[in-house]
Amino acid sequence: MNIRAAAVIICLLAPAAIAETVEETTDRLVDAALASDQSWRVLEHLADDIGPRLSGSNGLDEAIGYTADVFREWGLSVRLEPVMVPHWVRGEEAAILVSHRGAALRLTTLGGSVATPPAGITAEVVEVGSVSEIAAKGAALSGKIVLFNGAMDPRLVEQQRAGDAYGGAVWQRGRGPSAAARYGAVAALIRSVTTRSLRTPHTGALTYDKSLPKIPAAAISTEDAELIHRLLARGERVVVRLVLAPRTLPDAPSANVIAEIPGREKPEEIVVIGGHLDSWDLGRGAIDNGSGVAVVMDALRIIHASGLRPRRTIRVVLFANEENGLKGGRTYAEDHSADLWRHVAAIEHDLGVGAPTGFSTTLGPAEINRLMPWVTSLSRLGALRFETREQTGADTSPLTGGCVTGFGARPDATHYFDYHHTEADTLDKVDPALLRQNVAAMVTLTWALAEMPERLR
Amino acid sequence: MNIRAAAVIICLLAPAAIAETVEETTDRLVDAALASDQSWRVLEHLADDIGPRLSGSNGLDEAIGYTADVFREWGLSVRLEPVMVPHWVRGEEAAILVSHRGAALRLTTLGGSVATPPAGITAEVVEVGSVSEIAAKGAALSGKIVLFNGAMDPRLVEQQRAGDAYGGAVWQRGRGPSAAARYGAVAALIRSVTTRSLRTPHTGALTYDKSLPKIPAAAISTEDAELIHRLLARGERVVVRLVLAPRTLPDAPSANVIAEIPGREKPEEIVVIGGHLDSWDLGRGAIDNGSGVAVVMDALRIIHASGLRPRRTIRVVLFANEENGLKGGRTYAEDHSADLWRHVAAIEHDLGVGAPTGFSTTLGPAEINRLMPWVTSLSRLGALRFETREQTGADTSPLTGGCVTGFGARPDATHYFDYHHTEADTLDKVDPALLRQNVAAMVTLTWALAEMPERLR
Repeated sequence: MNIRAAAVIICLLAPAAIAETVEETTDRLVDAALASDQSWRVLEHLADDIGPRLSGSNGLDEAIGYTADVFREWGLSVRLEPVMVPHWVRGEEAAILVSHRGAALRLTTLGGSVATPPAGITAEVVEVGSVSEIAAKGAALSGKIVLFNGAMDPRLVEQQRAGDAYGGAVWQRGRGPSAAARYGAVAALIRSVTTRSLRTPHTGALTYDKSLPKIPAAAISTEDAELIHRLLARGERVVVRLVLAPRTLPDAPSANVIAEIPGREKPEEIVVIGGHLDSWDLGRGAIDNGSGVAVVMDALRIIHASGLRPRRTIRVVLFANEENGLKGGRTYAEDHSADLWRHVAAIEHDLGVGAPTGFSTTLGPAEINRLMPWVTSLSRLGALRFETREQTGADTSPLTGGCVTGFGARPDATHYFDYHHTEADTLDKVDPALLRQNVAAMVTLTWALAEMPERLR
Repeated sequence: MNIRAAAVIICLLAPAAIAETVEETTDRLVDAALASDQSWRVLEHLADDIGPRLSGSNGLDEAIGYTADVFREWGLSVRLEPVMVPHWVRGEEAAILVSHRGAALRLTTLGGSVATPPAGITAEVVEVGSVSEIAAKGAALSGKIVLFNGAMDPRLVEQQRAGDAYGGAVWQRGRGPSAAARYGAVAALIRSVTTRSLRTPHTGALTYDKSLPKIPAAAISTEDAELIHRLLARGERVVVRLVLAPRTLPDAPSANVIAEIPGREKPEEIVVIGGHLDSWDLGRGAIDNGSGVAVVMDALRIIHASGLRPRRTIRVVLFANEENGLKGGRTYAEDHSADLWRHVAAIEHDLGVGAPTGFSTTLGPAEINRLMPWVTSLSRLGALRFETREQTGADTSPLTGGCVTGFGARPDATHYFDYHHTEADTLDKVDPALLRQNVAAMVTLTWALAEMPERLR
């Protein structure tokens, strides 16, 4: 007699006997996930056929229509919830070292940046590497182009803490431009947030402080940042001419794509699983976040196709806009503010599809222990590690900030930031087998949260 | 009594006593190399200040003047030997997938390519991966753009055989365009020869078969090559529009830079050590081959500064043109054809400056064994591996083809081809400590070959 058969008998004898143990159910769902080619099919279309999907672009519109069609084809109910999204469009972008034979810098305009005058901005470069250094240099930044040259820490990446390494450097991109503008800087250059580069600029959004002048900003490759560092370290004066011509158009109508399986017993309680449909314009959005979209879509499909009806409602939300504005997640939370209490949990998948290792969660250790018996199938995926974190994802942060329990998929992210926000975010970076493993981990946790008799808090 | 003191006494007692054993001499030279910052100084100037040095460019002229000045500053005699070099200039370069929403391909024109018509060439893509496949497809290539999509073998790279992996794929770049033209192809796209890419095109020279029409050719990133492969594998028709506007100008006057230490006993016998001054236009020629130039220059300086006079003449040759035409090496060999017999050996350094592992050589095992006692200092550098090869370097191939004994430095090249011929060939890729170790290995072998009583053949 094998263990499964024994488990069935024990369950049959148990007071609250059900036909199948939770482990058997989730193992069955995992088996289905590991055999499914549907996540790859969705991802291939998003990345290879549709390509870049920045908010306001035709690509995003097309992705919304495509994913909604796929849900319908799978026999799932789907609806679109309107979202107004930013519409920022990249333009000409170039920079040269005027002081050093006109050598060209490799750069990418930061999302949301204002333009330079058409003739560009020509100014001396001052380098800073930390918040304290900005304040210390103070007036010396006035009239200058400020280079934020703090490196993403490669030791943290080696320690499987790539997210922390990213978090330690990305403030320069998000808040650096306004921090420099505070002291009169005329433009900002940011060292690309990565530890591996082939002269590869990484874009991403900046956030202007509304009380300060908006200055144009771009990310340069780590190679160019290091070149400027060496020139300055020699005592040379470095002058850059920067031309950026992005445009900010009026906000555009878009939509979150929502599909769900209604709960059999507590349909009013909802487990949200989500990723974002938009992507930066440089690459083809395979990893960020075509992969997350494909994972949550296939997870829902597998549960639907299993014929099982979960106790609670499982809802996929494909957020329209994460990269530059978080309007997808914000609008969802606003529109559902009256029934936020009905959201039992929100699981986000937006860190690539390396081998799954587990999930971050807003739950504390006691609640994680309550969850454990329901997710034992994660152990066969090597994905049983749960770690308490305040933030478990960007799209779902307006929900988790409103006291919804948060989870964030934590695949191995060692190489995630090599490709993140670059033109190299393409389908070849995704291993189909690991994609399926991520679906399997997602389906396990989703089922558990939708099926546990009592919700976790 | 330490071993060195013992060795000195043994030497003093020996019939052909000299003041110092060869090991002591080379150990002293190695110590000097490992303490020298001069190779870094030269490399920094070549890469950071001068930058790209394609034949015919101001950068190459400047590098010739600079390196000659440095030799003079070091107290070494220097002369320039005229070389006429190709003058090919990159122009506009772009390609889009007309059949797939105009998606842009990342590409770089191959050195020496002819231009497309100004409006470009628009044609269907046919993919090939091997020589036999070209012949098999034959007439199917007529009127088409041929994509050479054979991958550089990552397993060989893992086995420390990156050079073999490169050799197995680079024929597509060198001979692919004419191989396709033979069957009526109108243009060629080559999968970049690398195993690691961030959407990074790798340039390099092509060689047209003079009996066939010259068709324009470019290398595309591995990502784009794989995208086209996936589209074709699905049975889709892939149409590309390719615009390339390079120009081939009249050959330009240039020069090999030559510096030497005359031999004390056999000045007519010469050990050549060399690298090439030219570099591709995309990057800054730090690795390829600023590093080799810096290594051989500092090796000569260290021997000169030691006050030792070698038995034979040691000659540095900084070749003017290797990348697109090999005119530096060819002209040197032609100009010195009458005294080729005087060239005892030629050591080339053109595979980057990873940790030294040893040298390739045209010598057979018996002669390698004769050399061994003279190069024991290589063991402290982990660089004592000699391997018999027909080819030991490109610049020196016209010499070794003329029966001069060849050696090629063999640093660890695991990551060499990641950067090779790309815009990412920048100074940050060079580890100063490993650069010095390469100088140390070069100085050891150079001294041995210049000092051994009998020449090796």
